[in-house]
Formats: sequence, structure tokens, C-alpha cells
Amino acid sequence: MNSGSTAHPSLLVVGSVGLDTVETRAGKRTDVLGGAAAYSAVAASFLSPAPHLCAVVGTDFPADHTSFLESRTVGLGGLERVSGRTFRWSGVYARDFSTRTTLDTQLNVFESFRPKVSAEAAQAPYVFLANIDPELQLSVLEQAKKPKFVACDTMNFWIEGKRDALLRLLARVDLLLLNDEEARLLAGEANLPAAARAIRAMGPRAVIIKRGDAGALLFHEAGVFAAPAFPLENVVDPTGAGDSFAGGFMGWIAREGSTSPQTIRTAMILGSVLASYCVEDFSLDRFRSLDLSAIRERFSAFADLVHFEHIRL
Amino acid sequence: MNSGSTAHPSLLVVGSVGLDTVETRAGKRTDVLGGAAAYSAVAASFLSPAPHLCAVVGTDFPADHTSFLESRTVGLGGLERVSGRTFRWSGVYARDFSTRTTLDTQLNVFESFRPKVSAEAAQAPYVFLANIDPELQLSVLEQAKKPKFVACDTMNFWIEGKRDALLRLLARVDLLLLNDEEARLLAGEANLPAAARAIRAMGPRAVIIKRGDAGALLFHEAGVFAAPAFPLENVVDPTGAGDSFAGGFMGWIAREGSTSPQTIRTAMILGSVLASYCVEDFSLDRFRSLDLSAIRERFSAFADLVHFEHIRL
Repeated sequence: MNSGSTAHPSLLVVGSVGLDTVETRAGKRTDVLGGAAAYSAVAASFLSPAPHLCAVVGTDFPADHTSFLESRTVGLGGLERVSGRTFRWSGVYARDFSTRTTLDTQLNVFESFRPKVSAEAAQAPYVFLANIDPELQLSVLEQAKKPKFVACDTMNFWIEGKRDALLRLLARVDLLLLNDEEARLLAGEANLPAAARAIRAMGPRAVIIKRGDAGALLFHEAGVFAAPAFPLENVVDPTGAGDSFAGGFMGWIAREGSTSPQTIRTAMILGSVLASYCVEDFSLDRFRSLDLSAIRERFSAFADLVHFEHIRL
Repeated sequence: MNSGSTAHPSLLVVGSVGLDTVETRAGKRTDVLGGAAAYSAVAASFLSPAPHLCAVVGTDFPADHTSFLESRTVGLGGLERVSGRTFRWSGVYARDFSTRTTLDTQLNVFESFRPKVSAEAAQAPYVFLANIDPELQLSVLEQAKKPKFVACDTMNFWIEGKRDALLRLLARVDLLLLNDEEARLLAGEANLPAAARAIRAMGPRAVIIKRGDAGALLFHEAGVFAAPAFPLENVVDPTGAGDSFAGGFMGWIAREGSTSPQTIRTAMILGSVLASYCVEDFSLDRFRSLDLSAIRERFSAFADLVHFEHIRL
């Protein structure tokens, strides 16, 4: 547990904060709050208050979004506001959510982002490097002061385009989170357990493979853990589900101050809980009304979802 | 539990028995034992001895296969042997097992198969109608004497080509097992929980959606249950995995003489155990050396795979 006597945050989250324009069969939203680090930090905040957000926005970033992040206790001391436009992403999902098409990506102020980690934030024992250029993820690691546990995410763009930097990063992190296609691409291996084994040989002692509505698999020194996805009929917008998973996961780890196998399993379920809520509305909107009792309720629903009795054969 | 005082079998399995020619990255096998009913009956036999097999083979069906089925206690009184060649299927799997291409299907003696259920077999309280023409599945139901629980499987070929007969069948069964693509096709709905709800409105009070290496989902009046797939690096031949799942599932139901929600959940895991062993070798070969202690061991491994501690938030 955190001593409470130090000024540093428990959890440092680095990545993108942006404005998304998203269309799904449930509707369309323009310039709404988005970005992997925004989803992760807000999700984490439900479990571990005051995660420190390290990101950049432009002068056009709405004060409403800043207020919302603050209302969720997210520490904004590391949120740079620089001259120019905020990072923007625009995409449309197939009616059945099986595919997503990116219509536009504007890096804007993100293009020249060089994460600067404050002296206090550099003391955070838990670090989540959301999906950004692995060179930037590495630069954050170089500023961090001996964190206890570092997790990172990545994507096909970096696996294909910046493999060397990514491999240098992987040699220095404890956990890699990525989706099934990314795991196959990184490992050059279609079988997921084999891909996870190959990835662990690159450095991370733990790998979490996210499979969307098929749940997530954890591979680490204590074996394998399968977290189901919550069966939802009413998916509104899948954007940020994986980032919310990572945020819920890291929030629990930071709260418990432990990475024991049992803590990591619980963290996987809490990550799944946050992800399942995330997709129930556009942007981070579902998190505006979410509270601990709802998280507790869905945690129990997850426990029921996989429960079966032991038998004698 | 079965009283033991009656001569009838607990479980009746109807479907195909055939000779498969299969090629995977692990090798090729020619004219090996196959067919949905063979996989299902053998898988069931580990949990509920003496399942009654109702199927047809030709005069070319090797005595070795008959001996193997008998060695597994499968009741062959309903296995017709008629003049002609046995049903044959031939297929090849992609190197990553993501797709399977059927090279050849020869119905042979199966073309004129009209299942005849003996007076004893008609008393079986548990009936599994493996994937065959829904007209034949219906004809078996008409011969059965008030079974306690009827499960059936189907495939895209019947969903598209014999929808009316399939719907008449579904109105009369307790459980439909099918894979995710078949569920989407049958329901006309991409979201799996929504598809399951639509299918349950067609008749079956329970639906199991099989998702290969993403596990299986049960939807029934008591809610949803998610059974994981066992993470296997060494898949040799996926043929028959779904049929072995169904066999293990029905074998447990028949053994327990119950379809309570808890029994059904346990049956899902035992189905998953049998399916996970099935794919470790070609044809039904893994079942030749399988025993209860191996089933027990993997059941425990499944329990560990999904275990997480309850927390207070």
C-alpha cells in the first residue's frame, strides 16, 4: 500500500489525449474526449485516485474536458498545453463492430511531443506507457526513478515501423498489453500461447493479449489466466476499451501495491469491468456517471460468469 | 442417476460416422475414423458409459474402428452396416488453423440413411442429435419416447438450405449447440448475446455458442456462462473438437441425470476438457490413451485458468 507520506503519485500514465470523431451504428460524436492516456487515467482513477497524466493538448482543448479529468482526480500537472491544435482521430465502425476504419489522424501538437516527467511523477512506483511511439515510451522510462512495475501497450504501426525501438523498450518493461493480431505480428506466430512465449522471451515477464469480445489472456511466470469479456448486447462505441482495460488493471495494481499472481488476476477482471462499462457509451461518457457500487456489481457478475463447481470424478 | 434396473442407454447419439482424410501442418492422415457422432459418442463414454450410437457405415468400414468404439463402451446396436462405401470427408487446414478447406465430401451410404431407433434406445432420457440433415434429426425425435433433454448441433449448410426443417426441429429441442458464425447466420444478428436471445425465441431454452480457441458461451434461463478454451501450443488437428465438446457435455448431463444450472456449467467445462484433448492428435487418436485421471487433471487446470479471488471494494 502507499504510505501516504510521499507527495508522488502511485501511477504515472503517459500517452495521447485527443479529440475523437466517432461513428457507430448508435450514432456519431464530433470532437469528443479521447486518447489512450485519457481512457487509461480515468479508468485507473476509480481504483487508485490521482493518477498522474503525462500528455499534451493544444490551445483548442476544451476546458470542460480538463474539468472532467480533474473531477475524476486525474493529476494534470503533466498535461502540457502548447500552441496549436489538439491531436485528432476520426473513425467509423462497421455495423457489427467487426472492423473499424480510420478516416483521419491529425497528430497536431502530438507531433513534437517530448514527454517531460516531473520530479514527483518520476517517483511513481507504477508506470503505464500507453500506445505511442516506442521512442517516447523509452524516454519516459529514462526519466522514471526505478519504478516497481512498468506496463506498456503498442500497435501494429510501431511493430512494423519501429521494431528496433520497440524491442529496446520491451527489454525494459514488466508487462506488454496488446491485441491478438498485434501479438501475432510481433511474434510471427499465429498460435497465441506460442506468440506469448516468444514475446516474453523479448523481455516482459508478463504478456496480456486482448481479444475484444473474446476476453483477455495473461501469460506470466505463474501460468495462464483467462479473463472473459462481459457479454453485452448494447455496445455503443468500442473506442478506448483496451485502454480502459489497461487503466483498470494498473489502477488495481497501484492501489494494492502488489504484483502477486492473485493481484494480477484480480486486476485483469477489474480491467475487464472498466472496459465493459467504457463501451456502453461514446467517448468516456459512461465514466461520468460510474461509481464504485457499479464496479462492484459488475465484478460480481464476472465472478458469476465463470463460476463452476469443483467435482469429483 | 440411472437406476441400473433398465436395459435402455442413458444417452443416445445420432449422426455421422465416417472416414476422414485430413491434412494439417502436423501431417496428413488418410481414411481415419471420423464423423460427428463418433467423436461425440467416444467423448461421452468417458463420463457416461455405453452411449448408444445410431449411425450408418458401409461394408468398407474397418473392423479396427468398430473394435475401438466397442473398447470405449460405445453401444453399436444402432450402427447399421449397409452395402456400399462409408461416408467420407476430406479437408485441409491453413497452417495457422484459421481456416479449413473441404476438399471432398462423399455421402455414400449416408445418402439414404434413415435413422432407426431401437425400442431400448428410444427410452434414452438424454439425446444428442449431432450435425446432420434436420429432417433426420426430426425423425429421430419422433421415435424417441419423451426424452428428458434433447440437444442438437447444426451447420451453415442446413441453416441456409433447410431453414424450415431446422426451425421445426428447434421448436422441439432443449439445447442448440453451434459456432459463432452459425449463430450469427441463424439469427441474422452479429452480436452474440443478441443472437442467442433470438435463437432462444425459436425454441431451445439453452444455446451454446462455440468459438474455437475463444471458448464457448452458454445462454439459458439462469443467465450466461463463459467457458474458456484451454490455451494449447501444440494443436495437431482441430477436427471433431466441437463434437467432442458436445459429447463431453452430454456425457456429464447423462451421468448426473440432471440439467440444473450448476450441472450444465460443469458439463460445459468437461466438454471443453474433452475438446482440448481431441485436438492434440489426429482423428480420435488422443482418446485411445485418455483416462479419467487426465480428465480430472485438465478439469483442475480449467478451474485454475479462470480462478480469481473475490475482493472488497
